[in-house]
Amino acid sequence: MKHSIASVCLSGNLKQKIEAAAAAGFRGIEIFENDLLLYDASPAVVRRIAEDNNIDIIALQPFRDFECMPRQNMKKNYDRAERKFDTMAELNTDTLLICSNVSPACVDNPALAAEQFNRLADSAASRGIRLGYEALAWGRYTADFTAAWDIVKQADHPNLGIILDSFHIFARGRDLSAIAEIPGDKITLVQIADAPWLKLDVLQWSRHFRCFPGQGQFPVVEFMQEVAKTGYDGYVSHEIFNDEFRSTPTQDTALDGKRSLLWLENEMAGRAPDIVAPEIAEKAIAPPQASVSDVEFIEFATAGSARDTFLELISALGFQQTHQHKSKDVALFRCQNVNFILNQEPDSFAQNHFLVHGTSVCAVGYRTDNAQNMVSRASYFKYSRFETEARPQEMQIPGIRGMNGELVYFVESGSDHRRFYDVDFIPLETSAPVSKAAMRVDHITSGISESEFLSTSLFYRVLFALNVDQPQDLIDPYGLIVSRTATSQNKKIRLPFNMSRSGNSSTEQFRRRHGGSGVQHIAIHCDDMLTYIEHVDQKYILQIPENYYDDLEARFDLSPELSAKMRKYNLLYDESPTGYFIHCYTIDVNGLFFEIVQRHQYGNYGEANAHVRIAAQVTARQKNQN
Amino acid sequence: MKHSIASVCLSGNLKQKIEAAAAAGFRGIEIFENDLLLYDASPAVVRRIAEDNNIDIIALQPFRDFECMPRQNMKKNYDRAERKFDTMAELNTDTLLICSNVSPACVDNPALAAEQFNRLADSAASRGIRLGYEALAWGRYTADFTAAWDIVKQADHPNLGIILDSFHIFARGRDLSAIAEIPGDKITLVQIADAPWLKLDVLQWSRHFRCFPGQGQFPVVEFMQEVAKTGYDGYVSHEIFNDEFRSTPTQDTALDGKRSLLWLENEMAGRAPDIVAPEIAEKAIAPPQASVSDVEFIEFATAGSARDTFLELISALGFQQTHQHKSKDVALFRCQNVNFILNQEPDSFAQNHFLVHGTSVCAVGYRTDNAQNMVSRASYFKYSRFETEARPQEMQIPGIRGMNGELVYFVESGSDHRRFYDVDFIPLETSAPVSKAAMRVDHITSGISESEFLSTSLFYRVLFALNVDQPQDLIDPYGLIVSRTATSQNKKIRLPFNMSRSGNSSTEQFRRRHGGSGVQHIAIHCDDMLTYIEHVDQKYILQIPENYYDDLEARFDLSPELSAKMRKYNLLYDESPTGYFIHCYTIDVNGLFFEIVQRHQYGNYGEANAHVRIAAQVTARQKNQN
Repeated sequence: MKHSIASVCLSGNLKQKIEAAAAAGFRGIEIFENDLLLYDASPAVVRRIAEDNNIDIIALQPFRDFECMPRQNMKKNYDRAERKFDTMAELNTDTLLICSNVSPACVDNPALAAEQFNRLADSAASRGIRLGYEALAWGRYTADFTAAWDIVKQADHPNLGIILDSFHIFARGRDLSAIAEIPGDKITLVQIADAPWLKLDVLQWSRHFRCFPGQGQFPVVEFMQEVAKTGYDGYVSHEIFNDEFRSTPTQDTALDGKRSLLWLENEMAGRAPDIVAPEIAEKAIAPPQASVSDVEFIEFATAGSARDTFLELISALGFQQTHQHKSKDVALFRCQNVNFILNQEPDSFAQNHFLVHGTSVCAVGYRTDNAQNMVSRASYFKYSRFETEARPQEMQIPGIRGMNGELVYFVESGSDHRRFYDVDFIPLETSAPVSKAAMRVDHITSGISESEFLSTSLFYRVLFALNVDQPQDLIDPYGLIVSRTATSQNKKIRLPFNMSRSGNSSTEQFRRRHGGSGVQHIAIHCDDMLTYIEHVDQKYILQIPENYYDDLEARFDLSPELSAKMRKYNLLYDESPTGYFIHCYTIDVNGLFFEIVQRHQYGNYGEANAHVRIAAQVTARQKNQN
Repeated sequence: MKHSIASVCLSGNLKQKIEAAAAAGFRGIEIFENDLLLYDASPAVVRRIAEDNNIDIIALQPFRDFECMPRQNMKKNYDRAERKFDTMAELNTDTLLICSNVSPACVDNPALAAEQFNRLADSAASRGIRLGYEALAWGRYTADFTAAWDIVKQADHPNLGIILDSFHIFARGRDLSAIAEIPGDKITLVQIADAPWLKLDVLQWSRHFRCFPGQGQFPVVEFMQEVAKTGYDGYVSHEIFNDEFRSTPTQDTALDGKRSLLWLENEMAGRAPDIVAPEIAEKAIAPPQASVSDVEFIEFATAGSARDTFLELISALGFQQTHQHKSKDVALFRCQNVNFILNQEPDSFAQNHFLVHGTSVCAVGYRTDNAQNMVSRASYFKYSRFETEARPQEMQIPGIRGMNGELVYFVESGSDHRRFYDVDFIPLETSAPVSKAAMRVDHITSGISESEFLSTSLFYRVLFALNVDQPQDLIDPYGLIVSRTATSQNKKIRLPFNMSRSGNSSTEQFRRRHGGSGVQHIAIHCDDMLTYIEHVDQKYILQIPENYYDDLEARFDLSPELSAKMRKYNLLYDESPTGYFIHCYTIDVNGLFFEIVQRHQYGNYGEANAHVRIAAQVTARQKNQN
C-alpha cells in the first residue's frame, strides 16, 4: 500500500505539513487547495519543499461545482480548470480531484456530465493530467460512488477515473460489493477515513468527526478488501477533517496517520491474505499481536510525606509490603492478586514523574504471552521504547512510552519475566491478609482531554487490540464528562477514559491538580466485597448521602440486610438486564482514588452512579476546605 | 406568570441551587430527583432551606417508567410511587411529574395506562398530591402531548393532569393549536425550554442543547400564547439540561433564567395583550424597547507606550484627534462618522481595564432614541447600571455593565445627549481628511468562550432586540472557531461572536493575550474603499499570499484592474448571490485589529476568507518572532 495523506488532516502551514508527512514516512501528500492559498510562497516553492523532503505531491484537491452547470457558468468552469492545470504543472502533480457538484444551479443530467468530463479530460490529457471524480455524500445529484462510476464509464476517457472516499460511501450506507466491479485502473485515487457512527447531519459529521482508520467505527478493513479486489495499486490517502487534529502538533498527527495505515494493511493481510495486492502482503510485516491478558502491576510515583498519606490509604485497603527491591528504593505492595509498586528511586522516571504530577501512576505492567513481540510491535508502529536500568542479575522488563505520560511494561506469563518480583526483589515477612476474597484490577480510569482521545484509542487498538465502546455521558455538578472505555476481548483489561466538556468539571479539576492527563482512579474487583468491606476503616471510604439509599430502595428489590449493609458501608448499587454491581470509592490522595467493585454478570462501570460519586467528592472537598 | 425553575438547570448542590433561584426572584423551584439524592441532608432539611429562602418547592421530578409495564413490575411501581409520596410529604411539595414510559418492556395500551393513572391518582388524592403526566419526545408509545392528553382525559381524575414541556412539543414538530383545547385546570405544570434547531438525535438535542427562552430559536412566545388561551394560571418553570449551565456559576445562570421569563412575559404582552392572562398583563411592565440604531462611539483603554503604538495604527487609518475632554485625560479621534475615544484618565474604569487587558475596547456607545428607557429597561432585566463621574456642566452618559467586561453606553440621538462631544470636549484644529468617503462602524467582533455565548446572546436579545444568526464554522490552522452574529433589524449593529473549540486557535490565543473575552476586531465600512486604501500605508495592512489571488481570479470574473488593485493593497473578496464584498485587515496591537470593508448588496462577513485572515495573522506573528 502506498501511503499518502491530504494536507487538510494536519495543523500548521503547508511547509510544516509537508515536512511532518515526510518525516512520518508518507510517500505522498495531497495538497488541499486552501493550504496552498494560505501559504506565502509560490507553487514552485512548494514543489521544491516536497522534493527536498522526498515526498510526492500526488494530487491537488478539490475542484468544486464543475459539471452540469448552466451554459454561462460552464465556460468559466473550463477556464477555471485550465488555471488549476497551470498550478498543477508548477506543483508537479498529475492528479486533480473533482468533487460532485453541490450547487443549486446544476442540473440532473448524467449524459451531459459525461460529455463535459470527456471534454475536460481531453484538455487534461494534453498536459499529462488525470482527473478523478468523487461523489460527495451531499452532492446535489451525484451522491453515491455508483452514480459517479456511471458517469465516468459513460465519459470513457483514459484520463478520467473515479475517486473512492470511504467516508462518503459509509455515510450513504452503500453496499461495498459494488466497488469490486470497478477496474482498478479506473480508480484514480482511494481516500480513506474512519468515523464514529453518529446520528447527525452528514456535512457536520464529515467536517468535524472523521478520524484515522482504527480510531472510529467504520468497517474500513472491509472497504479496503473490496478495493484490493479491483487490482488498484495506487496511493491510499487519508482524507480527514477533524477539529482535534488541527489543534494537535503537526508531527504527532502525521505519526498517528502513518500508524493507522500500517495497522490497516496489517489487518487486511491478517484477515484475507489471498486477496490483498502483492505489495501489501509483502510489506505487512508487523510482529504478530501477542495476547495481552491482564494487568500485572501498577507502579506509583510518590515520595516523602505524600508517600505516608498514600501508604495509609492503601494499607487501609489491605495492601502490605511483601517485597523490597534488591538494589533500588522500590517496594512491592500486594493485596491478593493486585500488585502495587512504589518507586522512590532517586533520578528515576518515577521520581521525575512525581515532581511533575505528585503522587500518581507512573507505569502499568500488562501480562502478555510474548513480551518481545509486544515491544517489537510497538517499534514497528513507531511507538518509543523505554529501557529501564537493570544491574547484572536483575531482569529487564520490556517497556514502551505509553500515552498521557505513563510507561507501559510487558510482563511475560509462563516465563522468567513473570517472576521478576522473585528475581529482583527480596521477600519480606507479612501478616495474614485482612480478607481471603480474591482480588484483581478491574479497571483503570484516566482523565484525559478530548484532543488526546483519538491518539490514545489508536495506541490501545493497534498494540493491544482493545475495542472502544460507545461514549457514555457522566453528569457532573459542574459540567459534562464523556466517558469511553477500551476493553480487551477477555474483559480483563478495561480502560475507561473520562473527558471533560467543561473547564470546571471534576475531571478537569483532576487534570489541573495532576498537571496533565493520567490515571485518576483504579478499580479493584473483590469476589466477596460484603465481607471485605467490613475490614476497611470507613474513614477512608467516600461518604454517600442517605437520600441515595431511600431512592435505591424504591427502585430495586433489595433485601433489608443488603440495604442496611450498603448504607452502613457507603456502597453503591446498579443493575443491568443480566446482573448487578456493588461498588464504593475511597477518599483521594492528590486527586487519585480507588474503587472497590464486585460484578455479578454485569458488564458496565456503574455509570448510573457516577454523578453520586462526583457530587460526594465535591462535598468531601468542600468539607476539607472548611 | 408565576416563575419557577427546575433545579437541574443550575450548577452546584441543592442548597446552592435553591438559594440562587430565590435570590434571582423565582417563586418556585422543581426538585430534580438526582439533586436530592446527591444532597447530604434529609428532604425535611431541604424543605427548611426552601422555607428559609421563601421559595416554594413546586414539584418533585421525574418519576419514570410507570405506566403499562408487565404485571410483575406494576406492583413495584405502585410501591415506588408511595415511597416518592413519602419524600414529597417531607419536602412539602404537592406535585409529582411522571414522564412517559421509555422502557422496552412496556406495552402500547392507552386504556390500561388511563386505568393505572386513575388508581395511582386515587392514592395521591388521599395524600393531597397531584400527578402530572408528560410525554417525552422519545417516549416509547406516548411521545406527543396529544397522546398524553388522551390518556389523562380517559383517566378522568381530579388529581391527574398533563404537563406541557415546550421542548418535547417543538422537537416532535407538533401543531401548537391543539394546546388551546386542553382546559387550563387540567394542566398540572408548564415547563419551558428553548433550543437551537439542530439535525441531531432528539435525546442528545434535549440533554445538551436546551437553553432559556430567548437564547434559542424555538417560537416559545407562540407556545406560551397557546397556553394562555387555556386559562392556565400556574407556574411556568424552566426545564433546561445544558452542559454550559452546569459549568457557569449558579447565581449567574439563575439570573439569566429570571431575565428569560421576564422577557417571555413581556413579549407575550406586547404581541397579543388581549389573550394573556390578567396577571401577566399586569406584571408585564418592562420599560419599552427603545430603538437602538447605530454604534455612536467605541472607547479604548490604553496608556503609555502602548498608546503610541495604537495611535500610530489608527492614524494610519485616517483618524485624527478632533476633541479633548474639558476635565479628563480623554481624547476623541474621528474618521468621518467613526468616533474613537481614548481614555487615559487615572483611576477610571478604562485605566483599570487597561491594567487587566492591555490596549483594548473598554466601552461601546450605542445611539438610541431614548437613553433613559434603555437604562430603565436594563435595570428591569436585572442588568447593572454604571455611573460615570461627571463634573457640573458635563453630561452624564447613561451606561450599564455589558457582557465580557465592557461597558455599554446609550447616547440619545436628536437630544442634548447626542452632542456630549460638544458639551464635554474642546474642539481642536484638524487637517483635511485623507479620504472623503463616508465611513461608519460595520461590525464589532468579540472573542468569547462557548460558555459565555448564551448569556451574551440573551443580553443583546432582551435589551437590544438583536437577532442571532445561524452558526458559521471558521477554519483556523490550529482548530475550529464557531461564529455567531447578533444583528439589529436595520443591520447597522452587527456583533459577531467568535468561539473557539480548541485551546490553540487564534481566538483562544487572543483571549489568553487579552486576559479574557472581549472585542477582537472592529470593522469599518468605507463607501469608496478602493480610493481610501491608496492613502493607507501598507505596512499597517495584513499581507495576503499571492496564491490567494491566483485562486480568486480562477473563481471570479474580476476585471484586470480590480484584480491588480486587490493584489497591490492586500484586499480580500467575496460574493453572495446578491452582491459582493471587499475587505482588508490591519496588523494588530495587543491582539486587537481593524478591518476595512465595503459591502455591495452583501449581508455576510467574508467568512469565506476568515481562514485566509487567520493564516496570514499566524504568518505575521511568526515573522515578528524571528
